[in-house]
Amino acid sequence: MVINMASNSTEAELQHVIDRIKECGFTPHVTRGSERAIVAAVGSGGNRSALEALKAAPGVEDVVPIAHPFKLVSRQTRSGRTRVQVGEVCIGGDEAVVIAGPCSVESREQLFSTARGIKAAGATMLRGGAYKPRTSPYDFQGLGVEALRLLREVREETGLPIVTEVMSTEDIDVISEHADMLQVGARNMQNFALLRQLAKVDKPILLKRGPSASVKEWLLAAEYLLAGGNPNVVLCERGIKTFETEMRNTLDLAAVALARELSHLPVIVDPSHGTGRRDLIQPASRAALAIGADGLIIEVHPCPERALSDGAQSLNLEEFAKVMASLSAPLRSVAAAFAAQA
Amino acid sequence: MVINMASNSTEAELQHVIDRIKECGFTPHVTRGSERAIVAAVGSGGNRSALEALKAAPGVEDVVPIAHPFKLVSRQTRSGRTRVQVGEVCIGGDEAVVIAGPCSVESREQLFSTARGIKAAGATMLRGGAYKPRTSPYDFQGLGVEALRLLREVREETGLPIVTEVMSTEDIDVISEHADMLQVGARNMQNFALLRQLAKVDKPILLKRGPSASVKEWLLAAEYLLAGGNPNVVLCERGIKTFETEMRNTLDLAAVALARELSHLPVIVDPSHGTGRRDLIQPASRAALAIGADGLIIEVHPCPERALSDGAQSLNLEEFAKVMASLSAPLRSVAAAFAAQA
Amino acid sequence: MVINMASNSTEAELQHVIDRIKECGFTPHVTRGSERAIVAAVGSGGNRSALEALKAAPGVEDVVPIAHPFKLVSRQTRSGRTRVQVGEVCIGGDEAVVIAGPCSVESREQLFSTARGIKAAGATMLRGGAYKPRTSPYDFQGLGVEALRLLREVREETGLPIVTEVMSTEDIDVISEHADMLQVGARNMQNFALLRQLAKVDKPILLKRGPSASVKEWLLAAEYLLAGGNPNVVLCERGIKTFETEMRNTLDLAAVALARELSHLPVIVDPSHGTGRRDLIQPASRAALAIGADGLIIEVHPCPERALSDGAQSLNLEEFAKVMASLSAPLRSVAAAFAAQA
Amino acid sequence: MVINMASNSTEAELQHVIDRIKECGFTPHVTRGSERAIVAAVGSGGNRSALEALKAAPGVEDVVPIAHPFKLVSRQTRSGRTRVQVGEVCIGGDEAVVIAGPCSVESREQLFSTARGIKAAGATMLRGGAYKPRTSPYDFQGLGVEALRLLREVREETGLPIVTEVMSTEDIDVISEHADMLQVGARNMQNFALLRQLAKVDKPILLKRGPSASVKEWLLAAEYLLAGGNPNVVLCERGIKTFETEMRNTLDLAAVALARELSHLPVIVDPSHGTGRRDLIQPASRAALAIGADGLIIEVHPCPERALSDGAQSLNLEEFAKVMASLSAPLRSVAAAFAAQA
Repeated sequence: MVINMASNSTEAELQHVIDRIKECGFTPHVTRGSERAIVAAVGSGGNRSALEALKAAPGVEDVVPIAHPFKLVSRQTRSGRTRVQVGEVCIGGDEAVVIAGPCSVESREQLFSTARGIKAAGATMLRGGAYKPRTSPYDFQGLGVEALRLLREVREETGLPIVTEVMSTEDIDVISEHADMLQVGARNMQNFALLRQLAKVDKPILLKRGPSASVKEWLLAAEYLLAGGNPNVVLCERGIKTFETEMRNTLDLAAVALARELSHLPVIVDPSHGTGRRDLIQPASRAALAIGADGLIIEVHPCPERALSDGAQSLNLEEFAKVMASLSAPLRSVAAAFAAQA
Repeated sequence: MVINMASNSTEAELQHVIDRIKECGFTPHVTRGSERAIVAAVGSGGNRSALEALKAAPGVEDVVPIAHPFKLVSRQTRSGRTRVQVGEVCIGGDEAVVIAGPCSVESREQLFSTARGIKAAGATMLRGGAYKPRTSPYDFQGLGVEALRLLREVREETGLPIVTEVMSTEDIDVISEHADMLQVGARNMQNFALLRQLAKVDKPILLKRGPSASVKEWLLAAEYLLAGGNPNVVLCERGIKTFETEMRNTLDLAAVALARELSHLPVIVDPSHGTGRRDLIQPASRAALAIGADGLIIEVHPCPERALSDGAQSLNLEEFAKVMASLSAPLRSVAAAFAAQA
Repeated sequence: MVINMASNSTEAELQHVIDRIKECGFTPHVTRGSERAIVAAVGSGGNRSALEALKAAPGVEDVVPIAHPFKLVSRQTRSGRTRVQVGEVCIGGDEAVVIAGPCSVESREQLFSTARGIKAAGATMLRGGAYKPRTSPYDFQGLGVEALRLLREVREETGLPIVTEVMSTEDIDVISEHADMLQVGARNMQNFALLRQLAKVDKPILLKRGPSASVKEWLLAAEYLLAGGNPNVVLCERGIKTFETEMRNTLDLAAVALARELSHLPVIVDPSHGTGRRDLIQPASRAALAIGADGLIIEVHPCPERALSDGAQSLNLEEFAKVMASLSAPLRSVAAAFAAQA
Repeated sequence: MVINMASNSTEAELQHVIDRIKECGFTPHVTRGSERAIVAAVGSGGNRSALEALKAAPGVEDVVPIAHPFKLVSRQTRSGRTRVQVGEVCIGGDEAVVIAGPCSVESREQLFSTARGIKAAGATMLRGGAYKPRTSPYDFQGLGVEALRLLREVREETGLPIVTEVMSTEDIDVISEHADMLQVGARNMQNFALLRQLAKVDKPILLKRGPSASVKEWLLAAEYLLAGGNPNVVLCERGIKTFETEMRNTLDLAAVALARELSHLPVIVDPSHGTGRRDLIQPASRAALAIGADGLIIEVHPCPERALSDGAQSLNLEEFAKVMASLSAPLRSVAAAFAAQA
């Protein structure tokens, strides 16, 4: 941290800041400029958060953080890249993975036909919502345990590992029993009570970026999971909220490259939520792989116009197969190229 | 909903849309323009969400919602304004209320001195965090049940009703035992599992607006509470995330007027989080009352520079007393003026 | 500036940074931490922009500015508040001013009836567009010189000083001949060629904040005017672009208080563009005055539904008179109260 | 347009809307729902902007546009893709182009060494600023005509066509004399006075997207150029402003795919401004090509840490050569693949 004193601050105020820095467990280094003094607080064992409160001390103009606040997720902690194993599937390895499936599990028929279709097209994991976060209380909220049972059943048939969203600490146990990977939805990225419980679970976690979360905040949410004991975390970029209205969200692909640079965790991309438009899923998927994403998660429904949720951004099985065909080369080579480079 | 057909869509595609609208429980009305057809789906009993999925039907360019999606929170449902009673305090009545207190309960001494100070200055409710949502897992996370006990004790002495944040469904029972009002934090505004449980609680709820929630999404979050059985909801504007970096958030005061126009629920303002700057709390509070807010919630700490959280935006007791003095006239008259007008 | 070295940087890289800081005219002060070194560049006469480029030097992780980059607009340069005289009207004095009028001058009749109406209601300056910046080339672009002549004529009758927008350096001369104050529109806030010419004009300037300009960028745009020789600048907050769609812009009222704290220039508020909704203009105007704005600029049209531009956010004359009546007390007292305080 | 009547509107108000729609040159079609009526205004010859003002008519709740407001830039107007010829270079053809060069022309030596270096690495056009838009008046503002002369000279030697920014209508003539392509900078995207003059110039235009411009607004800015007579327009995505602070802007790559879908104009990407980080330029460039961009524009400087502007985001010549080597395959094949597909 650097504490920036106001230009009209007094010596006594400066001394007070110096004393507080010591109390907080850091070493102060003062630099006197022509107009103002700045004080660097040096050390790593102290209480960062207490330093930030110095912004309220008399004579202080600003407190500017210098180092990143995350540790375990950082590439400075771990030089290699993390690989997360989900059943037979490895996320973060040489091949990019494709997770596909419906927004919500709606029925046995819908789920089985989707699962068979995406497997035939080359997807290696199945997504499907059992508990759905919906903006309106009057929208379809998911089939709950019934959906979980169907997901388990379809995995037995197809062999595809299952990822599904967990919205509440109360559902963690039952979902862990049925699913292979637990998803934290974008709107729950900073649901710290949920993160703390998921840190104790013996399942990998798919952590979606919040719609207004900075890359730092996203990595700090992952830090909750690692710090609590769960190292198997996959990050997922799914678009952020901006002023643009033609697309549901603004897909922040550069954040994928940045997250991979700052962290050793794998990063996948959700072009379905990221754009909200079926016509943009193929080009957005290509770009995601080109920028180094470790995989994709794509919404697929046998009949999108009858989907109970997210129909407008879901591909049908034929469209999905076409997208997969157009991606087949990058899926194998791009990730490998980046792995070689890293 | 209005379904906007693409300019090159076929008659068969149009007929398909007409059929689907009927299946969804609405009546279709077709308007043929020079370049394209549009179809209005009329009625109120049908499945809105199913209509939205028509965006995925062949020949459809866009589906545009016409009516607002919320019901119970709407002023069209209830013409008068809701008053929420919290102990002796009425939020939404003729006088604007001021809730004040520390971000986190840190100790008996800190809490009692704050509570006595804010009461002396004219505040009528006490805030204080027991369970804290913190961006970093390494920051102070709150004293939990111990804090709840202290809050209850200080209420016995001062008579000030207590509002405190609930972060998880698991904590609802114990918090309900100790507090008078339960707060849903900004980052949990769309934690629907939490909202559904709080809808069943016999305590009023303070619902903070999410940092990237539109006014519509905020009202739909409140709709979860009303639809689930809890009519005692107070909305709280606390700033949204924008590109501006000089302030922690952008305080969206016009949204207060808009929320009061669209809904009958009371709306209060949090200038502490809304600006993140101690120097802006007084002018932002004045403006909040002038735009019709039903109250304020302000962070106060006996020694902000030693606060374990949010020190930079907390007032000390003397500063808070000054702010209260400068607000005394508007606190009484402005809300009344608006009430008269409404 | 503080130069933050990477944790794995070398001594040679550090020495290089030290050398460059000296070359740029600053004095380097090195602080060695447990993990990394930071270097403060002290002094005020050097080349800030050259220091920023050090971000590209080997071993440098980040370059963090400490002091604000503006000078002449700063309150540190001038302790009193600037008053800008426009004809008989003083902006920045004890009374808040109200500027009103149509978005565009459309006809003699429209302009004269508006001018008479707003004067009767208490406005003291007239706005009216002659050259209009329109998002689409197919929309009404203004009457140009004809509008300027009408504005001059209506001033002769009513005595109201005129403010009108200048979109191009080529129009500066003719507009200066006819108008009393020249407006830089939001979309031209960073049209530096225009600012540089306006700095040489002997007329006061109304500088609107850009829809995505930070407060710092806004003040730096004003710095162009002051540095080029024109001290008579009034800032105007008119809303910024965010994800919210119910309002045309998000009116950033806290930025008004912040701009008044950082700068000695007067700040007025445009609730018409700031909200884009006629129903929010009265409450937003009240809040603007309460937060310390030196005045308001409001769009008024005799028949908003027939306006050639911005009809949706324009008040008719009767509505405007009502707003003025409800503001009469704050117009006189609030500004005075803030002036006393400052 | 669809006019949405308020639920409590009267028959007279509805009739008034119907009459106004006719006056504006459209045909009204009324649909009466259970709660409200909506009126579609059908036709293409009428005055859209006048219809929008109906939002201010009594009984009207909202006016919702249905069709896109742009015409000449639309793919519905022209089915093939536009190719823009700049000297020998074709933008929008089978091969993606790379434009490279310094942010500002600083000296003969700097410019010539950069031009030779980027040509050797495979770039086919040179960028270089003569007139610089700078946030602060105290930053380097460009060498002006001297820079133009140097650019012309370096073209004679290298054969690379030149693109440089025009900030003011006054500079159009002199820049047109020296440069092959004129750039409209992001902050001038809605400088309509400038656009109108550039529409009359016999040079191709590079139109950067504004930092807070929606895709629609960007295309409407291009519409100014085409409607005014200049069909040779290349769009350039360079990042938008969001809350993210780790990158200078948020590069909106999906907008590239969307712009190419809505318009026949070529679209290139500026990863330098789009990310503001040298370390992200290579992956962002790969992704840009993968999503279908027709080219790249990259900032290169012989010694970025001594650059007078944008050093932090500029590559040195060696780094640029590496990026070019890693892109060589996609530069040839990707654009061709997309062209085949379109």
